Amino acid sequence: MTNMAQRTLPQRLLLGPGPANVHPQIMAALQQPVLGHLDPVFQEILVETAGQLRRLFGTENEVTLAVTGTGFSGMESCLANLIEPGDTMLVGVNGFFGTRMVDFAKRFGAEVVEVNGEWGRPLAVEDIDNALHANPGVKIVGIVHGETSTGVRQPIPEIANVAHAYGALVLMDAVTSLGGLPVMVDEWGVDAAYSASQKCVGTISGLAPLTFSARARERIAQRQGPLPTWYHDIEALHQYWSAQGFYHHTCSSTLVYGLKAALDLMDEEGIDNRFARHQRCGDALKNGLEAMGLSLVAAAGHRLPMLTTVRIPEGVEDLDVRKALLAEHGIEIAGGLGPLMGQIWRIGLMGYAARPENVRTLLDAFAQILTAQGCNVDGDAGLAAAEAVLSR
Amino acid sequence: MTNMAQRTLPQRLLLGPGPANVHPQIMAALQQPVLGHLDPVFQEILVETAGQLRRLFGTENEVTLAVTGTGFSGMESCLANLIEPGDTMLVGVNGFFGTRMVDFAKRFGAEVVEVNGEWGRPLAVEDIDNALHANPGVKIVGIVHGETSTGVRQPIPEIANVAHAYGALVLMDAVTSLGGLPVMVDEWGVDAAYSASQKCVGTISGLAPLTFSARARERIAQRQGPLPTWYHDIEALHQYWSAQGFYHHTCSSTLVYGLKAALDLMDEEGIDNRFARHQRCGDALKNGLEAMGLSLVAAAGHRLPMLTTVRIPEGVEDLDVRKALLAEHGIEIAGGLGPLMGQIWRIGLMGYAARPENVRTLLDAFAQILTAQGCNVDGDAGLAAAEAVLSR
Repeated sequence: MTNMAQRTLPQRLLLGPGPANVHPQIMAALQQPVLGHLDPVFQEILVETAGQLRRLFGTENEVTLAVTGTGFSGMESCLANLIEPGDTMLVGVNGFFGTRMVDFAKRFGAEVVEVNGEWGRPLAVEDIDNALHANPGVKIVGIVHGETSTGVRQPIPEIANVAHAYGALVLMDAVTSLGGLPVMVDEWGVDAAYSASQKCVGTISGLAPLTFSARARERIAQRQGPLPTWYHDIEALHQYWSAQGFYHHTCSSTLVYGLKAALDLMDEEGIDNRFARHQRCGDALKNGLEAMGLSLVAAAGHRLPMLTTVRIPEGVEDLDVRKALLAEHGIEIAGGLGPLMGQIWRIGLMGYAARPENVRTLLDAFAQILTAQGCNVDGDAGLAAAEAVLSR
Repeated sequence: MTNMAQRTLPQRLLLGPGPANVHPQIMAALQQPVLGHLDPVFQEILVETAGQLRRLFGTENEVTLAVTGTGFSGMESCLANLIEPGDTMLVGVNGFFGTRMVDFAKRFGAEVVEVNGEWGRPLAVEDIDNALHANPGVKIVGIVHGETSTGVRQPIPEIANVAHAYGALVLMDAVTSLGGLPVMVDEWGVDAAYSASQKCVGTISGLAPLTFSARARERIAQRQGPLPTWYHDIEALHQYWSAQGFYHHTCSSTLVYGLKAALDLMDEEGIDNRFARHQRCGDALKNGLEAMGLSLVAAAGHRLPMLTTVRIPEGVEDLDVRKALLAEHGIEIAGGLGPLMGQIWRIGLMGYAARPENVRTLLDAFAQILTAQGCNVDGDAGLAAAEAVLSR
């Protein structure tokens, strides 16, 4: 047993699907003095943070806040509030997080219509249209914007259009996309969306930003029975986060300082510059991996900038490579989830970690280790291909 | 709108019911490098932290961990796992948090038998006995160890004995007590207990330590339907927190560093010394307030050391006093909850805030402000009475 104070923890380069490395300005914000959850100064910060979250989500939704919990806490908040037992929910399933949404929805009593798609390709909008046609009365359509398990970006505006044509609400998982890709809740017609703090938003985990439209709130107001959760009661959370400041739970000022500092950094950088940085780094990584001789999982044209999926070459052991990356280079990447376990690696370039030097470091380390494992890759070609993008 | 980096936040003396001020060693631990939630080094820390939590809870329960969320997240975890729709639960209600437990239990479908008691006195064990006799088949008895709304400490071992005699499980809210009062889950026969990180445990909020006995886990295993939550699924959380390390959610390494550093401090100080410190500071405060001319709310012999409740004197405005304390002295205390709103103040001395100098500072500031509000209090007598305890 070692005391925290005596420990020297390793400095990792966090290139998995989150948490990502945290910007020093955010780490510094975590050291600001702790304030009580009802302190008037902290309530000002909450209200400002909610305003910044609205801009990031591209929404004017009054109910925009962060739940104290991780991204799955955001998923649970949305589903617990929007689903009544017996409601039919359609979920797009072409990855692990879609599967997880099905599981959550069933726990809250939904009849789930799954629209399955190939893992690695976006869902076909017409499949969703057909399923809505075949299953009248779907109340809510749930869809993952950026599937972290496959690296695929989904066509949210098109799916939202179809869903609305059938009178369904649209719930979007923006866990991986928020802060790294444009998310336009109002323009796309999304009724509720949730995210997490430790991916492209860029602070530590522990908060789940989310937003509910007026339409989604109407649905909640019309519920017959009581909400099957207190901790995730959206209207009670809103009464706390809004200027009213009613006690709901002991929200950590420290976590909110980190979130606000992360949102401040977006304002400083400019959100479009931030998106461009994620795109450039992601493109460089993908070009580098392909030039090295590896093949990507996600279909071209539908690849997430912040999360790149690559096939594990024949004869190479998933864990051997990841362990060597961690032990010899201090780099964390992730393996596949569900049916893709042992088949793919997932490499994140999120928030502060989305920097050219990290692309180079990863490609270099990756080439060394794969070569050592007897895999025939061309590290120099990989680095050159990445550089061609980075120098644009 | 002000950036976090440009803000100078006030240093408060946090003497409400939590969050309390955080020890510098814990704040330093929050700056340790972020690790991934599946990093082997972090998993070692999780396992060690769970071991320290077991000692603090006084238990050998295998399932002992911290949920990512606040204390209410711990309450929700316990109730969601232990209650099946239609189960009868008995809840002891003599304060706000008992009331809250009733609300939670109903949301999970429990038929609730309330055993009401006077706010400010402990529950009568015979009332619970009678209610269990009158309502056969109660599956679970829920009780708050330290009622933060009234400052009352409840007789858990006696209540647990009665509950077990009727075959009911015992759920204990240890949000306020854990880390400041002995909590002996195994010895008392408590089947499940939850707490929070920001009170007497002493780190920032965002984690809810909890523990489940083998008997409680059997109850979960026998559930007919699916658990009505995913985020708070205890067995899934256990698979993550145990050495198996299965992915459940993106647990924040930073929050766990803070919790572990807080537990380390307890080891350094010695847990009995820590309890004695809370008792001495609490006694000094109570004696001081009474000597000053104020009257305490909680019945003598049943007062919590870490949370003191005092009646607001006739003719004095709750908010005027609290605002002046905050504005002129930087001290946060809390008002009453529910029916006690406007009637009482709640003064916490928790964790790092439970220090003699804080007792003196609070009594001095309190006397000044009450005098300025036209209230006839004897500040010198209050300080002298406190000093008599502190110098023991």
